[in-house]
Order: sequence, then structure tokens, then C-alpha cells
Amino acid sequence: MKALVLEGKNKLTLRDFDIPGTLGPRDVRIKIHTVGICGSDVHYYTHGKIGPFVVTRPMVLGHEAAGTVIACGPEVTGLAPGDRVCMEPGIPDPDSRASKLGIYNVDPAVTFWATPPVHGCLTPEVIHPAAFTYKLPDTVSFAMGAMVEPFAIGMQAALRARIQPGDIAVVTGAGPIGMMVALAALAGGCARVIVADMAQPKLDIIGAYDGIETVNIRNTPAADAVARGTDGWGADVVFECSGAAPAILGMHQLARPGGAIVLVGMPVDPVPVDIVGLQARELRIETVFRYANVYDRAIALLASGKVDLAPLVSDTLAFDDAIAAFDRAVEARPTDVKLQIRMPD
Amino acid sequence: MKALVLEGKNKLTLRDFDIPGTLGPRDVRIKIHTVGICGSDVHYYTHGKIGPFVVTRPMVLGHEAAGTVIACGPEVTGLAPGDRVCMEPGIPDPDSRASKLGIYNVDPAVTFWATPPVHGCLTPEVIHPAAFTYKLPDTVSFAMGAMVEPFAIGMQAALRARIQPGDIAVVTGAGPIGMMVALAALAGGCARVIVADMAQPKLDIIGAYDGIETVNIRNTPAADAVARGTDGWGADVVFECSGAAPAILGMHQLARPGGAIVLVGMPVDPVPVDIVGLQARELRIETVFRYANVYDRAIALLASGKVDLAPLVSDTLAFDDAIAAFDRAVEARPTDVKLQIRMPD
Amino acid sequence: MKALVLEGKNKLTLRDFDIPGTLGPRDVRIKIHTVGICGSDVHYYTHGKIGPFVVTRPMVLGHEAAGTVIACGPEVTGLAPGDRVCMEPGIPDPDSRASKLGIYNVDPAVTFWATPPVHGCLTPEVIHPAAFTYKLPDTVSFAMGAMVEPFAIGMQAALRARIQPGDIAVVTGAGPIGMMVALAALAGGCARVIVADMAQPKLDIIGAYDGIETVNIRNTPAADAVARGTDGWGADVVFECSGAAPAILGMHQLARPGGAIVLVGMPVDPVPVDIVGLQARELRIETVFRYANVYDRAIALLASGKVDLAPLVSDTLAFDDAIAAFDRAVEARPTDVKLQIRMPD
Amino acid sequence: MKALVLEGKNKLTLRDFDIPGTLGPRDVRIKIHTVGICGSDVHYYTHGKIGPFVVTRPMVLGHEAAGTVIACGPEVTGLAPGDRVCMEPGIPDPDSRASKLGIYNVDPAVTFWATPPVHGCLTPEVIHPAAFTYKLPDTVSFAMGAMVEPFAIGMQAALRARIQPGDIAVVTGAGPIGMMVALAALAGGCARVIVADMAQPKLDIIGAYDGIETVNIRNTPAADAVARGTDGWGADVVFECSGAAPAILGMHQLARPGGAIVLVGMPVDPVPVDIVGLQARELRIETVFRYANVYDRAIALLASGKVDLAPLVSDTLAFDDAIAAFDRAVEARPTDVKLQIRMPD
Repeated sequence: MKALVLEGKNKLTLRDFDIPGTLGPRDVRIKIHTVGICGSDVHYYTHGKIGPFVVTRPMVLGHEAAGTVIACGPEVTGLAPGDRVCMEPGIPDPDSRASKLGIYNVDPAVTFWATPPVHGCLTPEVIHPAAFTYKLPDTVSFAMGAMVEPFAIGMQAALRARIQPGDIAVVTGAGPIGMMVALAALAGGCARVIVADMAQPKLDIIGAYDGIETVNIRNTPAADAVARGTDGWGADVVFECSGAAPAILGMHQLARPGGAIVLVGMPVDPVPVDIVGLQARELRIETVFRYANVYDRAIALLASGKVDLAPLVSDTLAFDDAIAAFDRAVEARPTDVKLQIRMPD
Repeated sequence: MKALVLEGKNKLTLRDFDIPGTLGPRDVRIKIHTVGICGSDVHYYTHGKIGPFVVTRPMVLGHEAAGTVIACGPEVTGLAPGDRVCMEPGIPDPDSRASKLGIYNVDPAVTFWATPPVHGCLTPEVIHPAAFTYKLPDTVSFAMGAMVEPFAIGMQAALRARIQPGDIAVVTGAGPIGMMVALAALAGGCARVIVADMAQPKLDIIGAYDGIETVNIRNTPAADAVARGTDGWGADVVFECSGAAPAILGMHQLARPGGAIVLVGMPVDPVPVDIVGLQARELRIETVFRYANVYDRAIALLASGKVDLAPLVSDTLAFDDAIAAFDRAVEARPTDVKLQIRMPD
Repeated sequence: MKALVLEGKNKLTLRDFDIPGTLGPRDVRIKIHTVGICGSDVHYYTHGKIGPFVVTRPMVLGHEAAGTVIACGPEVTGLAPGDRVCMEPGIPDPDSRASKLGIYNVDPAVTFWATPPVHGCLTPEVIHPAAFTYKLPDTVSFAMGAMVEPFAIGMQAALRARIQPGDIAVVTGAGPIGMMVALAALAGGCARVIVADMAQPKLDIIGAYDGIETVNIRNTPAADAVARGTDGWGADVVFECSGAAPAILGMHQLARPGGAIVLVGMPVDPVPVDIVGLQARELRIETVFRYANVYDRAIALLASGKVDLAPLVSDTLAFDDAIAAFDRAVEARPTDVKLQIRMPD
Repeated sequence: MKALVLEGKNKLTLRDFDIPGTLGPRDVRIKIHTVGICGSDVHYYTHGKIGPFVVTRPMVLGHEAAGTVIACGPEVTGLAPGDRVCMEPGIPDPDSRASKLGIYNVDPAVTFWATPPVHGCLTPEVIHPAAFTYKLPDTVSFAMGAMVEPFAIGMQAALRARIQPGDIAVVTGAGPIGMMVALAALAGGCARVIVADMAQPKLDIIGAYDGIETVNIRNTPAADAVARGTDGWGADVVFECSGAAPAILGMHQLARPGGAIVLVGMPVDPVPVDIVGLQARELRIETVFRYANVYDRAIALLASGKVDLAPLVSDTLAFDDAIAAFDRAVEARPTDVKLQIRMPD
């Protein structure tokens, strides 16, 4: 089978590549339909590594996927050939202490698609555990099914925030993840969400949603906009999605006394944090690592129409053009949120 | 000033009645614009009492109100004459143990409009503590301002539920409070809400909202509908709003393992509960008593357009017709959700 | 191997009985040292069933056990032959929705020792998944290791209560489980625990612990004692461990406004509950079903000496006397809390 | 009346000084018995300011006090002359948004003893709101009553941690507050607490308590000690009480996946934080600002004997020697935890 293979830093090929593996009793075989390109895929392409994860052998990319079940292991229940599905790319050890606690995302033994040495899903067929394969309702397309993975990060952030109905939230950073977080927070109970960034095209895209307000921090400090929008009280929840040092240093100024900050953005190195500023408002700070137990919630929100991610799919390219798609993703056009690759029928 | 006075059981008069009181330093004087009729007002009218609260002297009715500030005590900040406002009808002792904990709704010393011996607000002007008077944004009308009080109960239920983004909820009982709960739960993060009742006209009203599904339990047991709608897993949250013994006895069957039940409906007498049934799914059960700290959240959701309560105002009657309005409320027409009274300009 | 076999209602034999099973790759083989007798074992003996679980074929009893690992499957890590251990008797499906959420105790697929048709551990050797086998520190004896299972129920109750440091708790019902709950609540953060029962010998046993107060409800209503002990405010947490209808009907009177009730006792049939009474204080009610993720916590508390369960082991009998031990358990002597059986070396 | 007056930086006098004030209807007048010296008192003495709070006029020091009620305003209930009490030094605006939420400690309007321009309590008599005055049970001495204030910070940290029964905690920093936190965490449900510092005399004092283990980080990195003490899993809760940059940079290494960090120590300036390190274990970080609603809990733990703070009172000096007492506090002898001043009878 042909796959999109990262041969090493800056070198992608589209070539025959068989991912080893056999269908276990609780596995399903899935024909892939659509795969989204994630920033981490692009980062492996351009840097050959992310932190301690280094691409030392050819690796198939891709982890945001939807497709159709074509075979089931003998112990599989709840799924059958023909089911349209999306897949959670991280597989934990079910016996680990973290898994038993329900926080399988932080199981040190987790394996994750397209994270060395594990292959991803930019290939026509994959084998996956049924327990991490989720049926798509008729109202959720393959394209939206492939959006569940990035949206799941937004969901995880919204869950960790412990949003209370009617909260006012702020999102600093309007990249793809910031947008997912904003929409998850809004659907997840916020009355309104203020998104702050300096890239106006991104603000225009996310600001087109009802309930989302935007502030361009080139013109207005985020703290001023938030104070004005909350009678000086501050936001109930601040989602820090920029990873930028100045945003992190000032994040406490956006939150109300007793509010929460969710750290979603990932600054490469340690950054200065104003701990006394956080303490003076007795803020709670949550962190996010991928997600656990959110796929069914994410799918429910897409299926009910409460969340519409279609405007965030900027373009869909054919699998044969996958390398061009990645090169476009590297460009990081300000109007591109998510690029998706359509696998051959 | 003229007021709607409950002289005793079954006897209402519209007559001159001065509620004693002086404007304290932290009080505001409010000209009342709109007052909603609540089931408890009607119950005092038809029964002369609710539980231990007995009407022994003439009492002004009404506790769901919006109006305009016309005077402020000298220490009031944040409010000024001309401000359009709605009012929280319960006033706690700020020094009580409950108030210090932030749960002032359960302060035993709380006084509450139109709960004997405290007068209500169906009168042209009232004096109220500024701390329990909330400014209405321009996008929230007086009529909607007067809906904040009943919606606050829905909000309290949604808060106590600790909804997680994408939850599926069930509401048993589609009375006015059940409807408020359903809308608060939906806005508060649920992906969808299933409302169960046997009165089809009520189901038609609430079922007209996006995201709300209905089940008429004359035709389909609620447990069947919920099982079908959740792949047999059960609802994340069950809001019991009927107060009906059969619903309470079977409520555990609607909830998923590890889910929650919020008891909103108030059965007059003790009712049988299947404790082992609740334990077998290790359910959490929350109860609701009025509300605390939800007015600003409720107003935020109305102001942002995320919640629209206008379809639930069935009719608006003039203050001169207040007794007729109450008699219509006694009728309990299946298509009447909320009747409001418009005070004279 | 010889086992204690329940042949049917009221019929126990001590006879050769081989529990089928092979050592899986992630299993361990354990030589059993000590087994406690639980009320459910006794109930199967005297009634032949518990609710829907009916003993239709000979079944080995026992589920409170400690022993020594004597063999490990090839994939086992963290355990080695010679390790002293205790075992969690319920084994869930790790792929179930409940297990993924970390609430594997409510997985409908769970199998549990000595719950038909699953055999228990009153036999010299058992095979068990390593993931549900816990190493005992040197400071925890086999006898105490076999107490971890019943103490785990107390721990689960304490966890579900969400005790806050310095809480005052009440336990209604001083049976073995009520005692476990009281000790878990005390170690788990309560400043003091008031235990209410009508059996003075039981109150004497649990009242001998520092921090535990007792009230004999033959002499003093529990509500009076709690009011006196809390300046009229009520207990932060009420653990209902009696399963008795009068205790359940009045339980809200023991709790402070905004407090919590944990339902541990299991009344056979639905019982009347004063829902309005619960609502008036806006109480939270939690339920308990066995336990999940508490064994390591329970062992840590025993190992550090913070909890001492030794006074609750009333007697230890030899395996050869196992039937006599059960007959004594049936007697339910008021001074017997826990009887344990010592397996042959 | 004579008071200990900070005239300005480095200048203390013991002189006649009348704190203005009249007994309001809900106030009590208290004869002070014992006052502890806090690090903040000392800091005002040596620096003349803490952050934005500058001593610009003579100010009475002291905020850790116990005494006896000698007069009550006419509306006071629950307290009477002769009652032995301790006092919460921060008084919020009861109508503020924060107070209504129950988080009155973060009310921006709070006034706090010995925080400019508010006078403290190192004077024979004070007037205080009854709502923030707490009766001491007979089993709690004045000396221990004056310890409630610093212990309240430990309690607040333990509450914010949301300790689960049987948790294992780490405290980095064994100053007076670190010790309070360790004892609150232990009483609040932890199975054991590991305290890390480089000052052996302090470790010896706190390590003398059952359930507290110590590690001298001059010899052993805290991360190594924690890994060894938790089978490599990490601590459930890390209380950062040192405020030291290296401890803060490495704090994530002490916590288990999904664990919590409570930031108690206050580094003067922003310090580098390893955000990706926190995210990789998806840690929750809580902050602490003084305390709210913990005095009654703290007193309950002292009264029941579950917490014994007597070993932490290093010396008690007469009020006439108050300046000498402060000079000794400036010395910061390694064996001095808390110095207290005994007011004249």
C-alpha cells in the first residue's frame, strides 16, 4: 500500500510502504477516507523531531483520520464492517496505573500515531483497537470525522477548565488549536468567548461565529478588552493557546479573582511566570496533554449541530498531492486553518 | 401605592398598600416594570400556604421582577438612577455561616419576596439591596429581565449538575421549571437534552428549540427513549423536574454508570427511592434550593443570545388585570408557560 | 486443591475443588494466606443468593484475601514470586466505556470473586491479573492485607464524600462497614466522626479510637447529638451505613446546609426519602458501589500507621475450621467485627 | 493603650497608641492574650513595605491573635463576654462579588490587620466583627488560638489541593508555612508527607511528627527521594512552599501523572516555569491567597487533638519585650519556628 512517508527531516515521499501488524481479536481494519494535517506532522517534516521524539527511520505521517470499518476481530462488539468511524490515535496500556484512573492520556506507555517510532495513518488502510474507534452518526461527514481529533484537544481544554454555565472565557492565540478551544468552550457552556491574537485574518475567521468576540492585540491590550467586556471583573476562564512568553507573563491579568487558566500552548523552553500575580487572585491553573474520554462528547456536539467545524477546513487535497499539501501547510498562510487530504476511494 | 395583595386563601385584591421600609445606604429604589407569575404565587393564592409558610396577614405577591432604578442610597456603587435592572428576591444575612461560604441560598435567615411574612414586588416601587440588584444589558428587555428569576433555577440546576461539555441530559417533567432547566442545561454545555412528559402541548413548545428532543411518556417509557438515544449507555445527567413518584422511583434507569441526577421537582411527601438502583450505577444526586450567584451568568446567556426565553412568555397582562391574570394561571392551560404582568408606566 | 465450597443454600463443604484457569501472560499465581469473611459470603450461605445473583452451582466463597505470589506470567512487571500481596476481587473489561473513564467498578462486565458464577478465593491458590494485585509493604501483615478489601469500601465512601480537611462527619450504623467508613473518613481528613447505632458493644469497639465519638440512638436521637456536637449547624458529611428506613428518612436532619450524604447501606427495597428535606439544605448525595482505584491508598494508610484495623479482627480460625467460622459469622455476635480464616502453610 | 508601633522601616516603639474605632452593632471588643509574630510583620519591620503596601504612617503590628471577648454589640449572637476567641484578620466587604461567591479572601476591598494603612492587634484591646471572631473550645489554649492564623494558610493550601484520602504529598520548603502546610495536609487526608529542605534543624522539627518524612536536598535531590518513596509514580500533591526558583523550575518532576501542585511560596519576581513539563503530566496547579472559611476547620482539628502545633511555638515573650522578640525574629534562628508575645493580663 502507498503511504506518505517522512524519510527524514525535510524529505517526504509517497511510496509503497507496509505498516506491519495483524488484526487482533479486539481490533478493526479501517479504510481511511480523510486525514487532516496537524502542526505536529508539519513540525516533524521541517525539523525531523519534536522534543525527545526524533525521526530516525522512515515514518508514515498523519493522525487525524476518519474512514470505514472493513473488518473486525472476533471479539469486537459495537462495530461492524461498513461503519463510518474516526479514531483516537493514542493507545495506552489498559493495565497501567494511569489507565485504571481514567487518565490514559498520561500513561507513559501510550503509543501515538505519527510519533516516532509509531507510524501514522496517511495510508489507505490501518488496523486499530475497536476501543479507540468511534462510530460517526449520519450527520457527521468524513471530513468532520477527521476534525474530531484536533477538536478533541479543544474539548480536553474545556473539560479541564470546569466551565460553569454562563462563564465568560478568553482565548489567547487564534491558531487552529485556539479556534478549537474557543468553539469547545462556547459549546461547553460559556456565554461568550473573547479571542485575542495579532493576526487579523485568523480573528476574522473565528469571529464569524456567534458568541465569539475578537480583539486584535496590535491595537488593544487583551487586558483592556477583557476588563471592558467584564465590568472590570475579569474572565472566568483564560485559555492560553499562544505559547508566547508575553501572553503567559500577563495571563493572570485577564482572569477574575478565583478564576481559572488553562495552559494549552506549549512554549519550547521554560518561560517567566508571575506567580504572585496568580496567587493574588487565587487562580487555578490547569494543563492539557492530548485528551482522554472526549471523542464521544466531541462527536455528540458535532452531530447535534451545536458545533460546526466546516468553516475551519480551508482546503481538501487529493492523496496524490499530499506532499504539496504539506508544503502548503509549511507556508502557514494566514487564511489556512486546516488542510485535509482525501484518500483514494 | 397600589399593590396586588393576597388577603388570605383565595382572596386577592388590588388596592392601596404601603410596604414599610426606608432606603438604606446600600439600597436602591426601583420602579417595577414587569413581574412574572410563579407557581408559588399561585399556590399561596389557592392554598394560603406552602409547607410551613402560612399567609396569616395580607401579603403582596410577586417575586419575578424587572424595573428601573430611581434612587440610590449614598454607599451604592455600580448602579445609578435610570439603570434597567432585575432583582434577586432572596436576601441573606451576609454574616451568616452559609453566606460566608457562598451558599447564601441556604442561609436559614434568608428573607424572600412573597414568602410570608415578607412582601413581594407586585407594586409600583420597591426598595432592594444594591448587592442583589443586577443591571440589564441593552439586549435584554424588561420582559426577559423578569424571566431571569425562573431561569435562575434552571441555572442552579445546571451548575449543580457539573455538566461536562458534550453531556447528554434528560429532563423529566416539562413544566415551566423543567423547560428552564432544559434550556440552561443545553446552553450550559450539553450536546442535547431529552425532555420527557405526558403533556404534548408542553413538549411541542420546548421541542421547538434546536438541541431539544422530546418523548411523550404516554407512548414511550422514558427509559426506552433514553436507552435508544444513548446507545444503551444512559444519560450523563438526569434532571428530575416532575416531582412525580413514578419518575423518582425509576430515575436511576435513565442515568449512565457514574452519572448524575439533579432533584429539582419537589414532591410534597417522602417518596420511595430505589437506593440500591442508584448505588448499582454509583450515581451522584444533587439537590437544588433556589439559587445563589447565578444572576450574572443567567443575564450573560440571555444577553449573548445563547438562550432565548421569549417563546416561553405566553401572555402579558396589565397590572389592572392582575387578578384575572392569576385566575388564568390557576387554570394552568397546557399552552401557558409564563404569564407576565406589566406595571403601569 | 481443597476449597470452601458453597454447594447451595445453607450447605458448605470443605472439599477438593479445582477452579479452572490458566496463568495468562499478565496474571500471577498466588498462594493464599488469610481470607476474611464478609457479610455477603454469609448471605450467600444463608440465602443462596443476593438480589439477582443466585448460587445455582457449587461456588467457592471468599473475596477478602492476602497471600504470596508464587508465579508470574511472562508480561508481568512490578511483581515477582515471593511478593506479599492482596487482591482486588473485581476484574473489569479494560476496554469498556466505564473502565476507560476510570470507574471500572461500575463496568457492567465486571466479574467479582464469590459472586455467581465466579469462584472466590477460599482455596490454597488462585490466579489473578497482576493489574489487580497489590504488593504489601513490610509493615502490613497478611491479616491486615486481607482487611484491605473491606476497608476499600470505607475508602470509596470517603473519596466520594469529597471530605474537606477538618470536616465533621456522622456515620449512621456501626456494622463492620460503618466502622471501616468511620476510620477512612477520619484518616481521610475529618476532624472527628460521630458514629450512631443502637448496639452498645459495637459503639464501644469503634469508640475506642481517638477522634471517634459515639451516640447510642436508643438513648439520644442522632439529630440531637449531631446538633449538640456542631453548634446546631449539622455535619459536613453524613455516611448512611445502616440501610435502615428510619435512618434514611431522617438523614437530612444530620447534615449542614450545603453538606453531603453518602449512601453506603443497602436497603433491600425502595424506601421513603424526604426529598424536600434534602433540597431545603441543598444537600449532595453520593452513592457507593464497591470501589475503584483505592487499594494503593488504603495500603498507604495502613502502612503509615495512620489507620490501624487490627482491633477489628475479632478472631482468626484455621481453614480446617472454616465451616465453623461461617457458622459463627451467622451468629453475628455483637462483639464480632471481622472473622478471618488462616489458610494452611 | 500601649501598642507595638512600627514607626517606619527598622523603627519599632512600644508606646501609647489609640487605634480609632467604635463598637458597631455586630462587633465585639476583645482583650488580647497572645499574639504570634509572622514573617510579614518582620518584613514590614525590616523593609518598611511588602510589594505595593508601604508603611507611610505609624502602624500597629500583629495579626495572629487570641483573646477574650469583653463586650458585644447589640446585634451580636453566638458570642458573649468571657468567651475565649481567635480572630480572622481580614475583613471583606460582604456585598462584594467575591464575598457573595464565598471567596472573600480575594475581595479587592478586604482590609487586613497590620497591612498598611490598617492597624494590627499588638495592643491590649481590639474591636472586631463578630462574624470573623471564632470561639475557642476549652481544649484549645490561647497560645494555640494564636496559631490558628498561620495554620489557616496550611489549611487553605490543603483545601485547594483537594486531597484524596491516602494521597502522598510533598512539601518543598520547611519554613513555618511549609510546616503548617505539611501538618494540614497530613491531618487533611494524606497517608504521608515528605518535606524537603536544606536546613536540617527545620527538618528535624517537622520530621518528629508521625507520618512526616524528610529529605535534606543538600544530600538527595527531592525528585530522587520522591521517586523512591512512590515506586517511581510521583506524589499526588506537591506543595511548593519555598518560593525558590530551582524548586519551582523542577516541581513537575515530583508530581505523578494527573497530580496537583499548590503554589504557596511567593517568589518576589516572575520565575521560569517549565510549562511543557507540567503539561506532559497534565498537572493541575492551584494557588493560595491567605484563606477563607477555614478557621472553624482549623479549630476543629486542634480541638480534636488531630493536629498539635505546640511543638512549633519556639518561645513566648512578654509584651514588654516585644521589640526584643521582633529582633530575635529578624535573626531567623534555624530552630525558631514561631515566636509568640504574651499580652499583659
